[in-house]
Amino acid sequence: MRVLVAGGDGFCGWPTALYLSSRGHDVSIADNLSRREWDRELGTNSLTEISEPGSRVARWKEVSGREIEAFVGDLTDERFVYETIERLRPEAVVQFAEQRSAPYSMIDRSHAVFTQVNNVVGTMNLMFAIGELVPDCHLIKLGTMGEYGTPNIDIEEGYLTVEYKGRTDTLPYPKQPGSFYHLSKVHDSHNIMFACRAWGLRATDLNQGVVYNVDTEETASDPVLRNRFDYDGIFGTALNRFCAQAASGSGITVYGGGGQTRGFIDIRDTVRCVELAANHPAERGEFRVFNQFTEQWSVLELAQLVERVARSLDLQTELAYLDNPRVEKEEHYYRAANTRLIDLGLKPHLLTEETVERLLVMALENRARIEPETFAPRVDWRKPDYR
Amino acid sequence: MRVLVAGGDGFCGWPTALYLSSRGHDVSIADNLSRREWDRELGTNSLTEISEPGSRVARWKEVSGREIEAFVGDLTDERFVYETIERLRPEAVVQFAEQRSAPYSMIDRSHAVFTQVNNVVGTMNLMFAIGELVPDCHLIKLGTMGEYGTPNIDIEEGYLTVEYKGRTDTLPYPKQPGSFYHLSKVHDSHNIMFACRAWGLRATDLNQGVVYNVDTEETASDPVLRNRFDYDGIFGTALNRFCAQAASGSGITVYGGGGQTRGFIDIRDTVRCVELAANHPAERGEFRVFNQFTEQWSVLELAQLVERVARSLDLQTELAYLDNPRVEKEEHYYRAANTRLIDLGLKPHLLTEETVERLLVMALENRARIEPETFAPRVDWRKPDYR
Repeated sequence: MRVLVAGGDGFCGWPTALYLSSRGHDVSIADNLSRREWDRELGTNSLTEISEPGSRVARWKEVSGREIEAFVGDLTDERFVYETIERLRPEAVVQFAEQRSAPYSMIDRSHAVFTQVNNVVGTMNLMFAIGELVPDCHLIKLGTMGEYGTPNIDIEEGYLTVEYKGRTDTLPYPKQPGSFYHLSKVHDSHNIMFACRAWGLRATDLNQGVVYNVDTEETASDPVLRNRFDYDGIFGTALNRFCAQAASGSGITVYGGGGQTRGFIDIRDTVRCVELAANHPAERGEFRVFNQFTEQWSVLELAQLVERVARSLDLQTELAYLDNPRVEKEEHYYRAANTRLIDLGLKPHLLTEETVERLLVMALENRARIEPETFAPRVDWRKPDYR
Repeated sequence: MRVLVAGGDGFCGWPTALYLSSRGHDVSIADNLSRREWDRELGTNSLTEISEPGSRVARWKEVSGREIEAFVGDLTDERFVYETIERLRPEAVVQFAEQRSAPYSMIDRSHAVFTQVNNVVGTMNLMFAIGELVPDCHLIKLGTMGEYGTPNIDIEEGYLTVEYKGRTDTLPYPKQPGSFYHLSKVHDSHNIMFACRAWGLRATDLNQGVVYNVDTEETASDPVLRNRFDYDGIFGTALNRFCAQAASGSGITVYGGGGQTRGFIDIRDTVRCVELAANHPAERGEFRVFNQFTEQWSVLELAQLVERVARSLDLQTELAYLDNPRVEKEEHYYRAANTRLIDLGLKPHLLTEETVERLLVMALENRARIEPETFAPRVDWRKPDYR
């Protein structure tokens, strides 16, 4: 299948591009390399050293014999999108090319506006280019489980069948996102759902949980192919950040009481889910939603798991409970459906002590690169800042 | 009360500014005058001749003795917003300053992107300015009944209490908007709801129905104060456009079978609803939603009403059934709640033959200004156009 992976230089996009290529798909990537730029802006870095995009695709060709064409450009640049889609005429577009950090979107007004415009306009440009040039192409869009928030009823996959005052309907699941980033994904979902209805676009929205782990078989196969490992307070997500904190001798930072429960997924399952979606495309006009996570964990449970494994490796660490910088419930009901990808054949990698240990070892090996001052949360959800 | 009416040069904003001023509030307006520019872009015009903004506020001072300060600028210009809010320190901001035509948003990619960026970013700038500078200020935001679409259950005012699998929660009402314009309002609603939760913003979202009629007591009191009367296929909405069509001897254009049912409101009630919201502000942290319409009509019923009154005035007209350029159900359940503004004291002007007759007479008096070629729908919902 001819697939364009937008955001193909990023934490999820790069492993996905390699995985799809290794599975025999004809893969191209598009990326504006902004994730690397944001590290410079924020003084953050990847715990693993990552290669330049050109070296990555060249090395992949050496080790696999397979070519990945790389387009450097920005999805908010409408000419770039049109010309790339026109040239490739892809059968599927995987849309990872969004600003994906909730804290980044909450820094101030300009980061909030940037996140929403970047994400929403980039995806609109893709939608229109597909709709005009390759209307049969399948848009596979990365959303987030965070779109749903924490309702007091079960979370279903995209839709909710409601009985109300003696009548019934199946409606888009109500969304309660918790940051300007999560909001941008909700905006995308509504926009794409409409384009499916109006134009007959075919789309799959993958509402992904928090991704942990770093490497897939492909990215681990050569140092030049290695994936990034974010561990700071802006881009580092729960489990990976906890491992870097434990490896560096810092406290494992739990926000509030840590009772927040979320869906999690191993990056090795992320890449497989995308292929499953691509191999079983949505129908024309269908806006299909899969909840892409494999297990629910509370933040505290994860932190305690990392602490336990770290101690078994003789690392000195402990939990550091911080005032929660976010606005979120710390004790809440959470039960989310995730059967549709399993039904398509996903065999989940569940989170094991072995995985945590491997992450801790990776963090220890790269300990010299850790900048512990970047662990702390720097963004306060409660304070609007006009800058 | 010190009130800023953003979009205060527009069809709803100008009458609202005058009404609030006449009721003793200290009113300023902000507007980038883009609505006048879009008429030049599209070759459309107001059936009534409207004065320049400067003449309008000068005449208002002459006839009422009351001053309305006018700020010319764009809400997507973050400095303009900050400086205006800082200077005025309003107690309420009424946000009408959005691109408000569904067909305009569906012209092509660039109009769709413009509509979403213009509306969403302008409102975000207002939210951040209020949050940082005047956190107690009440944001009164114009939404639309079109955010809800046409679900097969009753439409409530902003929220839906769901019982599901033995559990219950009150959730944001699921939205199924039918154009990139309507989508932009849904995005606004989600963004504002979040800011209420995170920052303690106080906001009222007025989900307004289709507005008909033209003048209020204030705009009718002097020719220079007169309101605009849109009648074309892009900016003209059902009833007003039908009256212009009947007065010009053109057919009354019904899209499809005309079974589409919507909520409608007289512009004299629009201005009153805004004052009711302002006089009874939302609480800090509250995202309050009022459905701002007074009656439900099907498009066909409205067209038949106009036809009947037109014939009583000896006008030759008939209904012209056009292929529906929009993607919408033509036969559907529709029952929407609208009690919250009534509970605050709204006394609706229901739609009468007298109102239709007055609109027809106004259209006849200005018949020479009608450009009948602008009646036809020019935008096809089903065809994405990348331009």
